Amino acid sequence: MDPLTLIGLVLILFAIVASTILDGNSFGGLIGPSSVVMVLFGAMGGALAGFRLDDAKKLPKGLIIAFTGSPPEPDNVVTQLMNFAEAARREGILALEQGIAEVDDAFMKSGLQMVVDGVEGDVVRDVLETEIESMDARHSIVIDLFAKLGQYAPVMGLIGTVIGLINMLGNLSDPESLGSGMALALLTTLYGSFFSNAIFNPIAAKLKRLHAMEIAARELTVEGIMAVREGASPRLLVEKLEARLEPAQRIGAKARMGDAA
Amino acid sequence: MDPLTLIGLVLILFAIVASTILDGNSFGGLIGPSSVVMVLFGAMGGALAGFRLDDAKKLPKGLIIAFTGSPPEPDNVVTQLMNFAEAARREGILALEQGIAEVDDAFMKSGLQMVVDGVEGDVVRDVLETEIESMDARHSIVIDLFAKLGQYAPVMGLIGTVIGLINMLGNLSDPESLGSGMALALLTTLYGSFFSNAIFNPIAAKLKRLHAMEIAARELTVEGIMAVREGASPRLLVEKLEARLEPAQRIGAKARMGDAA
Amino acid sequence: MDPLTLIGLVLILFAIVASTILDGNSFGGLIGPSSVVMVLFGAMGGALAGFRLDDAKKLPKGLIIAFTGSPPEPDNVVTQLMNFAEAARREGILALEQGIAEVDDAFMKSGLQMVVDGVEGDVVRDVLETEIESMDARHSIVIDLFAKLGQYAPVMGLIGTVIGLINMLGNLSDPESLGSGMALALLTTLYGSFFSNAIFNPIAAKLKRLHAMEIAARELTVEGIMAVREGASPRLLVEKLEARLEPAQRIGAKARMGDAA
Amino acid sequence: MDPLTLIGLVLILFAIVASTILDGNSFGGLIGPSSVVMVLFGAMGGALAGFRLDDAKKLPKGLIIAFTGSPPEPDNVVTQLMNFAEAARREGILALEQGIAEVDDAFMKSGLQMVVDGVEGDVVRDVLETEIESMDARHSIVIDLFAKLGQYAPVMGLIGTVIGLINMLGNLSDPESLGSGMALALLTTLYGSFFSNAIFNPIAAKLKRLHAMEIAARELTVEGIMAVREGASPRLLVEKLEARLEPAQRIGAKARMGDAA
Amino acid sequence: MDPLTLIGLVLILFAIVASTILDGNSFGGLIGPSSVVMVLFGAMGGALAGFRLDDAKKLPKGLIIAFTGSPPEPDNVVTQLMNFAEAARREGILALEQGIAEVDDAFMKSGLQMVVDGVEGDVVRDVLETEIESMDARHSIVIDLFAKLGQYAPVMGLIGTVIGLINMLGNLSDPESLGSGMALALLTTLYGSFFSNAIFNPIAAKLKRLHAMEIAARELTVEGIMAVREGASPRLLVEKLEARLEPAQRIGAKARMGDAA
Repeated sequence: MDPLTLIGLVLILFAIVASTILDGNSFGGLIGPSSVVMVLFGAMGGALAGFRLDDAKKLPKGLIIAFTGSPPEPDNVVTQLMNFAEAARREGILALEQGIAEVDDAFMKSGLQMVVDGVEGDVVRDVLETEIESMDARHSIVIDLFAKLGQYAPVMGLIGTVIGLINMLGNLSDPESLGSGMALALLTTLYGSFFSNAIFNPIAAKLKRLHAMEIAARELTVEGIMAVREGASPRLLVEKLEARLEPAQRIGAKARMGDAA
Repeated sequence: MDPLTLIGLVLILFAIVASTILDGNSFGGLIGPSSVVMVLFGAMGGALAGFRLDDAKKLPKGLIIAFTGSPPEPDNVVTQLMNFAEAARREGILALEQGIAEVDDAFMKSGLQMVVDGVEGDVVRDVLETEIESMDARHSIVIDLFAKLGQYAPVMGLIGTVIGLINMLGNLSDPESLGSGMALALLTTLYGSFFSNAIFNPIAAKLKRLHAMEIAARELTVEGIMAVREGASPRLLVEKLEARLEPAQRIGAKARMGDAA
Repeated sequence: MDPLTLIGLVLILFAIVASTILDGNSFGGLIGPSSVVMVLFGAMGGALAGFRLDDAKKLPKGLIIAFTGSPPEPDNVVTQLMNFAEAARREGILALEQGIAEVDDAFMKSGLQMVVDGVEGDVVRDVLETEIESMDARHSIVIDLFAKLGQYAPVMGLIGTVIGLINMLGNLSDPESLGSGMALALLTTLYGSFFSNAIFNPIAAKLKRLHAMEIAARELTVEGIMAVREGASPRLLVEKLEARLEPAQRIGAKARMGDAA
Repeated sequence: MDPLTLIGLVLILFAIVASTILDGNSFGGLIGPSSVVMVLFGAMGGALAGFRLDDAKKLPKGLIIAFTGSPPEPDNVVTQLMNFAEAARREGILALEQGIAEVDDAFMKSGLQMVVDGVEGDVVRDVLETEIESMDARHSIVIDLFAKLGQYAPVMGLIGTVIGLINMLGNLSDPESLGSGMALALLTTLYGSFFSNAIFNPIAAKLKRLHAMEIAARELTVEGIMAVREGASPRLLVEKLEARLEPAQRIGAKARMGDAA
Repeated sequence: MDPLTLIGLVLILFAIVASTILDGNSFGGLIGPSSVVMVLFGAMGGALAGFRLDDAKKLPKGLIIAFTGSPPEPDNVVTQLMNFAEAARREGILALEQGIAEVDDAFMKSGLQMVVDGVEGDVVRDVLETEIESMDARHSIVIDLFAKLGQYAPVMGLIGTVIGLINMLGNLSDPESLGSGMALALLTTLYGSFFSNAIFNPIAAKLKRLHAMEIAARELTVEGIMAVREGASPRLLVEKLEARLEPAQRIGAKARMGDAA
């Protein structure tokens, strides 16, 4: 679990609280239930209207992943595939069968199974890459949903503020309420901007970041599976795959063998 | 029919009504026929001027599809094509002829007909993909029309508000009408923002979403038809095509055979 | 001639007139020669400065095409090329010579001439596609010119308004003129927004739309000429080319033969 | 030299002067040395900070080219290359040597020299296209520099205006200076918008336009050199290359021969 | 070390100080600790929330590189690779081994080592290009982090200003504090705009610029290593690689030999 999305949200709340205290202001004026209703329901309405019911059901899961999701660890994938390459060289492709049973990742599992089943190389790569594209399309919808929420929240804030101003201007006969009417109108702008920039946009960004890491890990897996299928030496496989890792993770085939021992 | 576009619109109206009631305001100030005229006719004018008369005629159909259109079901396409692959393997390509008669989807029908007619593989793929591109171009125009309406509505709202302000500033001799004049001017901004973000933009987004699903279903159909033509085994065809489905829909060739039985 | 660009402009003027009458305002306050001068000359200056003199000379022609230009009719192109395919099959490529003389479209003419002259297939395609790219580049400049006018008009409107505000603020000693000074300042914003969104942007969009149709018709022509050159059967040529037409225009080779008869 | 960038700037100045005179205002209020300092130094600071010292040194040259640069003349390039094709056909590739000495354009010169030196075709094309890409990268930096100046100028104008407003609001005890303080604050917005839209953005656009023409001329040169190397007939070379010219410049090989005679 | 990022920041500070002095204003009103807290913590929160903890740790290094980083020198790379080509031709590929030990650049080192180890050409290129892509992905995250800071800073400035306005409007009973309350509210907009445009955005731009140079230098290295592997003559290698350098750096193989002697 990566804590930075939560930390970011806390930092923003801290910024608001600390600067309010520094200026000697109270928080009473910042509470506005009607603004929350306007911004949240309005943004949900505008964003969801562009999607299908099935898409909307993925929203809660996206929310949870943004705050608690763990990125995949490509480092382990390299070691795993190196071991499969080793086994394939020593005992032949069919010997991979039993190792496959222990693989957790369904994507790697199905790829290696196709290799053992003797499916042609082009078809293996094609099926795996189609699966990556199809995952890409699915994830993009959820990311897009949060991005749209982040886009509609300030717009609905603005609509709420304009409605507030119109109401205020219609009651100019009561000048004492002018200030509080305008303050109330501005609250909706505040909440629209807050929900967009402290919640929805960061979630969309975080999901995009995790998604990019998952795509990269899967592409690494595809390259590795193809190398195993072509009987590449474990050393060369590690060299090829490590070019995709962070420099600090490039420990070489030897160290990985040690790890596995 | 997917109800989310309607639900979204209802949510936005609810957000406006609920927050107005929470603030104890009336709805009287929000009614402005001149603003509706300015925004709707202005946005239609600005958006349509960039298109041809034939394009504009597609606008009502787009409106209906956004609210009531059903996305295609790629899941059924896989089962259908598996059955054609089965038949082609057992009885030869020519035997597909009678099955084609029962196919509802004109796109799949014309593709399979070309296969039965013995048209070369490259030509079949080429014709089908040209048809997808051509559908893409046609749909994009309708999507673009609603996107342009969503873009011009707030602009016309702004123009209306500036006109309102100019009129108000010309009548400063009557200070009592200042507030109501400015409220009236702001109404056009409100309607511009509302029509754009509650109606036009969500419709454009929904049409784009349904369009993406249709494109994906057609590309799946093309891959399947090509596999049938090349005599692929039903099992491999299902494996290849299911990589394009949602994980929950990947039930395998066996389950599909059962379905068909 | 497609009337929609003119209709669009009329709709916007109607929106302004109708909403002004509905609000019971007069049009006197909306007349401002200095604002028209500021916006039109300013936008011309800003936009043209990024182009060459030769580009600027194409501006009037672009204006005329946007309002009166007819889109090409790909439907006729298909029938024409089908007849050439028919003739080439029956009497040989050289027999096309006399038919070419009757072709109006210079692009199709030069392509077929190369075919009759026995120029290699790759070269024919290459020359024709280079010509399309070169037309694309030429048209894009005119489209871009109007897009830039649409971009600079509101900016110049803003500059004019700021200048107006500065002048107004310098004369605060005469408070009676405050309202009219500010109204005058806002007029430039109004004209900037009007010229941009009622004239320049729609023209750019319309030219882009017509351009896309011309590109599509030319690509259709290239495919057809290549098919004629390769001796394709008229039926297959029609099938391939009709995939690029609107479904309603796909009448098949038989109906086209009838047409030609 | 193309005068349109200078004409554009003059048009904008005319628009400002004419509309000011039409409104009967004076120019005194528009003079603000502090605003010029804020906008120019601020925009230089913000834009340059994203580049290297070597990049910044190219700024003056870019400024001069935007106002006085001549676009290349692809028409002449076609005639020149036709003559080389003619010579290569009659007297062999080696005979080009002396003609090369008279070529002014260093790019065409180095390409033809490689052809005479017998460098392989793929390598010739590769080196020439790498050189185009490298020129593209170099020019893009200068264009980007002016684009960034155009982006930072209004931002710095806004910062200056906010500073001005804060100073004005701190002196509310002296209400008489309110108007002039706000006018002064707005001046920085005016200068920011003026420098951006009358100077920096048009220069960036003009440099981009000239750059696109240079790229096109060089790509034409590459195609021509390759055709000379492959021994293409002068007539075919002209046909291929003229597809890249404006229709009015397509005069055919015969007319060009006449020109050369 | 390239000083321009520091110079840029100094220029902006100079612009603010000089224009303030020119207007005869004091700096007292521009100091606002609460605004700094709001903008800096808020922007950090919003930007970081879209990344992982590991990404955030790279922020300080990015800051240092933007101000002190030296761009790579492709000119030296060409000379180095020419010498390797020379050695490979005279003494064979294996003779490169000892020269490799003296190479500082880890990227060039690992590429040449693969060549000496007799790894296949396609694999060498593949591994090196994968490494470039992977560096691209890593750098892009840091650049994106600063770009996001530059994007959130003005947004948080706006949120702070709205909060300030709401507080001010709630205290209208004390009209004397109106001006200072609004000045305080505007300060947050000022700091948001300043941190974004004077610090974060220029840093992002500078890192992107340095990154582009590093990518170009590495691609040059790959081309050179492949040429060494294929036994290209030093002269041809220099000709090919110099097409990627600035014209002033194209001194030819002879001059480089002299340099090396």
